[in-house]
Amino acid sequence: MRDEIAHQPHERLAKHLAADLAAVNDLIRARMISEHAPRIPEVTAHLIEAGGKRLRPMLTLAAARLMGYPGPYHIHLAATVEFIHTATLLHDDVVDGSEKRRGRPTANLLWDNKSSVLVGDYLFARSFQLMTETGNLEVLSILSRAAATIAEGEVLQLTAATDITTDESVYLKVVRGKTAALFSAACEVGGVIADAEAAKVDALAAYGDAMGIAFQIADDLLDFWGDDGTGKNRGDDFRDRKLTLPMIKAIAAADADERAFWDRTIAKGRQEPGDLEQALHLMEAHDALEATRAEARGWADRAKAALDILPDDPIREMLSDIADYVVARLN
Amino acid sequence: MRDEIAHQPHERLAKHLAADLAAVNDLIRARMISEHAPRIPEVTAHLIEAGGKRLRPMLTLAAARLMGYPGPYHIHLAATVEFIHTATLLHDDVVDGSEKRRGRPTANLLWDNKSSVLVGDYLFARSFQLMTETGNLEVLSILSRAAATIAEGEVLQLTAATDITTDESVYLKVVRGKTAALFSAACEVGGVIADAEAAKVDALAAYGDAMGIAFQIADDLLDFWGDDGTGKNRGDDFRDRKLTLPMIKAIAAADADERAFWDRTIAKGRQEPGDLEQALHLMEAHDALEATRAEARGWADRAKAALDILPDDPIREMLSDIADYVVARLN
Repeated sequence: MRDEIAHQPHERLAKHLAADLAAVNDLIRARMISEHAPRIPEVTAHLIEAGGKRLRPMLTLAAARLMGYPGPYHIHLAATVEFIHTATLLHDDVVDGSEKRRGRPTANLLWDNKSSVLVGDYLFARSFQLMTETGNLEVLSILSRAAATIAEGEVLQLTAATDITTDESVYLKVVRGKTAALFSAACEVGGVIADAEAAKVDALAAYGDAMGIAFQIADDLLDFWGDDGTGKNRGDDFRDRKLTLPMIKAIAAADADERAFWDRTIAKGRQEPGDLEQALHLMEAHDALEATRAEARGWADRAKAALDILPDDPIREMLSDIADYVVARLN
Repeated sequence: MRDEIAHQPHERLAKHLAADLAAVNDLIRARMISEHAPRIPEVTAHLIEAGGKRLRPMLTLAAARLMGYPGPYHIHLAATVEFIHTATLLHDDVVDGSEKRRGRPTANLLWDNKSSVLVGDYLFARSFQLMTETGNLEVLSILSRAAATIAEGEVLQLTAATDITTDESVYLKVVRGKTAALFSAACEVGGVIADAEAAKVDALAAYGDAMGIAFQIADDLLDFWGDDGTGKNRGDDFRDRKLTLPMIKAIAAADADERAFWDRTIAKGRQEPGDLEQALHLMEAHDALEATRAEARGWADRAKAALDILPDDPIREMLSDIADYVVARLN
């Protein structure tokens, strides 16, 4: 089992970039310290040391190295990306009232919502300090825009999640915001710091965007497939009244009775025993799960296609394999 | 009454900087828009249009103009400062569970905590976008450091507020973080964007730091003086178990019985009818209120002294008068 995992593409990429990744981890540890408020590194360490895959900072390192960058600022940018990601996780868990993350109790549960909000703010600010140190105004512009887009996607989700008129285009906006924006920016700034030509920077951004969308669609589908190792329970999104693509597709094909079911369970939130089974039945009846899987596959293919104009290099192959892996989880 | 208010120094400064301030308000309105999430400008407008004094952005404009800056980026920086301030207010109200701000219901009450957290994040990100547009890396470094210091001060306050061993040096760290850091940075970046010489930039930062400390000490003292027009009730900090300078001074002078009182009411939070009156009695018995007033006065004097090396100009006089005004509220 352990052996099989070691051959997953993001693990191979981590091995390929091991020295860079160690430098990123050192920088993260050095910068999460607070002179005055010891709770900050406590909360941050709880989340950052919990064994996340470091996928986003790895994308920055990979993009920079693929484009021939000798360093050192890809390390700062990768740490920036991980800080932004960690800040959004802290705030998301407050917003969602989550109790588990990466298989462990959330910070809002172990400490309190106050600490999660404020430590998140601290990490946001630290991330901007880190990227300012690169002295590169273009990466500052890309990453601050991405941070705004993330928050925008999350706010949009607040209202769209329980609105059964939410269609696939709104879902895509939410996903582009809350997930793909950071994947895309993480790749893009790697290219920018390497001074890559515009078309290649655009290709990196397009790869991140499509990969991020594939990643989120796959995540949303896995929620209906039971324990995926994330510590989440089957059907959490349904229970939490958070419309995702499989449900949106089922609602689009719903007759009047089925629509009343979605209205009661999602819009009004009046759920009864057996409702999750009924929701799964409706999604299967309308082929919504299979159609969602195909959609994720399509975005993964788009991600891979974007890599075509980039240099032929082992890193490019691993990025391509990661796009496959994201949806291979669905097989 | 209205006439008297119009002669307050921050009102005179607002009049002096009216054109700049109008440009700042226009920029704020343009940048609080979100293409996808209409809740963002709703929540932001609720707070930003609620008639705050715009003291912090005015300090940026004043510092830049005092140092001869012709524009245009002082406008961006002033809007940045107001966005950072608004974001922290949104998050503070969630952290404190506040129901009133500037005499109106808070956003967390009108919408929900989720919206306040996420819209705050959006405004933080927007503020970084705005300052990136100035193309000046030094102001980016100053303001991102200030944002980290603000969060640090707030986190420190979380643990220090109910800890009766909190002394004046910890209080000063909290105040420097949560309040003075932004006042100081607001002044400093005005000088930096004007390309002022280092000693003058330092003087502007020192003015903002001391003025911010005077401002917060005065605020904390006014909390025990009844309705100060902020919509807060007399003794809110005592009831909310938030140690401030008058209480810290009284605790430092407390005998064993008095210490037991503070331990019960603040550390343990077991408050009974009559406790606020007893707290006020103890603060008066130990001259803590008068000593706090003298402390605020001392910081205001330090703020004024810092202005000495700056150009002789009506703006300098108004900044000096604002420092006086901050503590004159205490007479």
